[in-house]
Amino acid sequence: MANSKFEYVKQFEQPDHLLPNTWVVVRIDGRGFTKFATKYGFEKPNDKRALDLMNAAARAVMAELPDITIAYGVSDEYSFVFHKTCVLFERRSSKLVSTIVSTFTAYYVHYWSTYFPDTPLSPPLPSFDGRAVCYPSVQNLRDYMSWRQVDCHINNLYNTTFWALIQLGGLGPTEAEKTLKGTYAADKNEILFSKFSINYNNEPEIYKKGSVVFRDYELVEPGSHNAAVEADNVAEPVQQSRTQSENDQKRRAKARIVVEHLDIIKDDFWDRRPWLMSNKPGKIPKEP
Amino acid sequence: MANSKFEYVKQFEQPDHLLPNTWVVVRIDGRGFTKFATKYGFEKPNDKRALDLMNAAARAVMAELPDITIAYGVSDEYSFVFHKTCVLFERRSSKLVSTIVSTFTAYYVHYWSTYFPDTPLSPPLPSFDGRAVCYPSVQNLRDYMSWRQVDCHINNLYNTTFWALIQLGGLGPTEAEKTLKGTYAADKNEILFSKFSINYNNEPEIYKKGSVVFRDYELVEPGSHNAAVEADNVAEPVQQSRTQSENDQKRRAKARIVVEHLDIIKDDFWDRRPWLMSNKPGKIPKEP
Amino acid sequence: MANSKFEYVKQFEQPDHLLPNTWVVVRIDGRGFTKFATKYGFEKPNDKRALDLMNAAARAVMAELPDITIAYGVSDEYSFVFHKTCVLFERRSSKLVSTIVSTFTAYYVHYWSTYFPDTPLSPPLPSFDGRAVCYPSVQNLRDYMSWRQVDCHINNLYNTTFWALIQLGGLGPTEAEKTLKGTYAADKNEILFSKFSINYNNEPEIYKKGSVVFRDYELVEPGSHNAAVEADNVAEPVQQSRTQSENDQKRRAKARIVVEHLDIIKDDFWDRRPWLMSNKPGKIPKEP
Amino acid sequence: MANSKFEYVKQFEQPDHLLPNTWVVVRIDGRGFTKFATKYGFEKPNDKRALDLMNAAARAVMAELPDITIAYGVSDEYSFVFHKTCVLFERRSSKLVSTIVSTFTAYYVHYWSTYFPDTPLSPPLPSFDGRAVCYPSVQNLRDYMSWRQVDCHINNLYNTTFWALIQLGGLGPTEAEKTLKGTYAADKNEILFSKFSINYNNEPEIYKKGSVVFRDYELVEPGSHNAAVEADNVAEPVQQSRTQSENDQKRRAKARIVVEHLDIIKDDFWDRRPWLMSNKPGKIPKEP
Repeated sequence: MANSKFEYVKQFEQPDHLLPNTWVVVRIDGRGFTKFATKYGFEKPNDKRALDLMNAAARAVMAELPDITIAYGVSDEYSFVFHKTCVLFERRSSKLVSTIVSTFTAYYVHYWSTYFPDTPLSPPLPSFDGRAVCYPSVQNLRDYMSWRQVDCHINNLYNTTFWALIQLGGLGPTEAEKTLKGTYAADKNEILFSKFSINYNNEPEIYKKGSVVFRDYELVEPGSHNAAVEADNVAEPVQQSRTQSENDQKRRAKARIVVEHLDIIKDDFWDRRPWLMSNKPGKIPKEP
Repeated sequence: MANSKFEYVKQFEQPDHLLPNTWVVVRIDGRGFTKFATKYGFEKPNDKRALDLMNAAARAVMAELPDITIAYGVSDEYSFVFHKTCVLFERRSSKLVSTIVSTFTAYYVHYWSTYFPDTPLSPPLPSFDGRAVCYPSVQNLRDYMSWRQVDCHINNLYNTTFWALIQLGGLGPTEAEKTLKGTYAADKNEILFSKFSINYNNEPEIYKKGSVVFRDYELVEPGSHNAAVEADNVAEPVQQSRTQSENDQKRRAKARIVVEHLDIIKDDFWDRRPWLMSNKPGKIPKEP
Repeated sequence: MANSKFEYVKQFEQPDHLLPNTWVVVRIDGRGFTKFATKYGFEKPNDKRALDLMNAAARAVMAELPDITIAYGVSDEYSFVFHKTCVLFERRSSKLVSTIVSTFTAYYVHYWSTYFPDTPLSPPLPSFDGRAVCYPSVQNLRDYMSWRQVDCHINNLYNTTFWALIQLGGLGPTEAEKTLKGTYAADKNEILFSKFSINYNNEPEIYKKGSVVFRDYELVEPGSHNAAVEADNVAEPVQQSRTQSENDQKRRAKARIVVEHLDIIKDDFWDRRPWLMSNKPGKIPKEP
Repeated sequence: MANSKFEYVKQFEQPDHLLPNTWVVVRIDGRGFTKFATKYGFEKPNDKRALDLMNAAARAVMAELPDITIAYGVSDEYSFVFHKTCVLFERRSSKLVSTIVSTFTAYYVHYWSTYFPDTPLSPPLPSFDGRAVCYPSVQNLRDYMSWRQVDCHINNLYNTTFWALIQLGGLGPTEAEKTLKGTYAADKNEILFSKFSINYNNEPEIYKKGSVVFRDYELVEPGSHNAAVEADNVAEPVQQSRTQSENDQKRRAKARIVVEHLDIIKDDFWDRRPWLMSNKPGKIPKEP
């Protein structure tokens, strides 16, 4: 039986190739995680196990997809960045998004028992949705990353104060909310310090800064590189030689994928890690 | 710290709402499943456990997303159909695709140990990619479904013969391939029967027809309904009353989601299940 | 000098093929026509010469693009409909829109002196913008056409009353606006009749109904055809034989393109002209 | 009569906003201009009147749309460039393309009699199609412009030699084509010089280089500006103050729009006209 009679339906598939020479960010978000967090008794305002699980899943995604240059996670969301020269899956949006979402979910479910050994998963299971966005310039990409990290800070300061008022101050949620209404960052710092002797600056970095995941090479001297210029040097879709490309792949495979909690708003982070912008693997650090 | 300075990056998100009043099919495919099947020793030409796992995951997806009216699976792929009036997630393509892919993956990994109790999963984990396609008319949708089922038939007949030649006939893969080159369906049936006394018609339906997943209501008399007309009666994006809508939801929630192995090419399947085209829940069958 | 170094820039062109098997409407609108109408002293509320010029340009567009099955114009806008089976320019949106807009503009400027012999055009010249929209079902298309004709009616009744109040009633624009605020159709009819002895029903059809442009074949008996069914019979992208296709083209070329002012909301218009839905040319009417 | 029943059809309009912070090129092409050129007896290989008409229309487009920073034309095509910060029509692709195509066509038809006073236009009239393409980086845009100018050179050298072989050498088109098959630029130069004493370098610049249209301000010293850096300084969608924006508009309105035939591949052209990349109007040159 030939299938030709029905094959015309393939014509309805519409291409969704993302614009070349733009940075592609795939952001995924937990679906209904407020309810999910309640079901599994996540600690408030932050559950270290849940964040470690997110980070473990993100690390696994990066290991399976070497085209991802950097990822940033906070709460139940994670942003994965493909370099602007990336041609994985011909830059098809659905393919990039669905692959990341699926791989992330697989590891999240698989590693669950490692981080929550006492509370086995049961339906409805955790799931994530995602979307891809293109950023034409380094500045736009950096601003995207900054946007997420500022958001992390704003939310964490709020949540830390909110839950202190409840857990330590004995307030109800409505009272806590009312107390915080219209307050500035300074006010919240003051509440934490004066009422609960909490110095927000001493809170764990993972809560204040979120998590950055990237391949680790030897840092370069600050001032010796300029991230934006590194990126502009690969402005065109340049074809690498096959050998060069294979060498790059090997070095990438050797590099350790690390999870750090650093400031990614200032230039320093990017200038010391020029490979993030240039997409050229750096030097593998010597074993200590 | 206000976040307004960076928030402009949200402008780069581009809308991806699918055309209203069209049937949306989200098809997902296993990534690298040839290798994956080898790693976990899937039986050839069909592994019943692997198919049952796919079906269990598809059933769970349908249970979590009542907007899906029917799904069809074969091998490592599954197609999920949203009714043309569906407005879930405002019909955003990324959201629909990523939610289905993620939910499916979660259940696939979660249920793995049920179907493969002796071979625990290890990285790299199974994952799926997906895409959404719009079909404007009932005929187009039906042709899409037929296309997949014909494909199932063609591939299964080929694979059944191919593996019979190897497993029962002692041929190598290259010889088996050569033997089958240029043969028609009748030839393959003949090889199976004359050489191996296999009557292809007696092969399990799940292998020959694939798997159809849908909500089960009382069948209607053949001839009393016309599926295409049912669908055309809801041609416009009609707003239901809230009560009607809630009633429909309750009946959908009560309906059993079944996995069957039926012919979905002929009209009979559709005419006896008018709810698939009309999106109006049918009668819940009485408990036996 | 080879051009290969720069040719990569072609990769940035993104496909914009419209979904197959959907009706394509290209609507064009005059840019800044309020100002333009003032500059050339268009009569209020309707300028017959300006409408005739619009219609002449629309007729010319249809003559140059036989793939257009029907067009509807009102004021400074025109909607051109491509049959859902149309594959002109591979259904590329930019190509369809720009070709129609350009051809329309060319004829508008070229025919200007025929309709406005005493007021030659001078920069800034008249221009139009346009966009393409896909409608999946006959009902959606019919509703689109109805939407435009209802809009024509609403606007014309308002404008006729508004300008009567000014031109015949001696009111200023602000007073006229205030008088009409919150009035219903019946109120406006009443104002026209009681104050100015104008029976709105006797106003010219071109103002009340707008203009429909189509190829003229012999009308069929009302009741003998059903437009929607005609269309559904060509639901799939069916390939015609070459001879059939050439025959159709010849008959289309022979057909007279007419401009009428008819009700296109009721079924009658469509049922008597089944070729509009079926895309099969009808019988050429005998010369009288 | 309220129009609400039909207004739902507006939901079918799909947004087509072009990615922010990218250079938008709208290229238009004459439709069927080979036939059109024959009909009106265009001279071969180049018709000065036809090119001057194209340039006059392009100048008029730029005068009506101050958001266009530069345009480049050759033969029957023209590319119009919007600065990457441009927000005209909310960057809607259809609107940008159709407006340019319509305005260009209007002037082409209107000015026709100025350039072809003895051959009045008759149907079918000249028309153009168009499309919009986004270029993320200055390098990509520059490469696009270079691509068009290299194409101009390649085609003009070929056509000049081809028509010399026919008009001066007495060859038929097929013979001329055969003679040129497989030849390089140097070969064509040699044919022109040795057979027809034509030094290609002395051919008119408008034929060899095409036409560049831009607003003319005082040139800056070569070396004092770097075009790419100018552009990167406006990398983000920066909001100008209203006053600044109005000032810019006034200076743009005062600037003369010139048509030149210059090399736009080398840096010099861009470095001396920094306003093209920065979108900041330069100094209006003093009247001589």
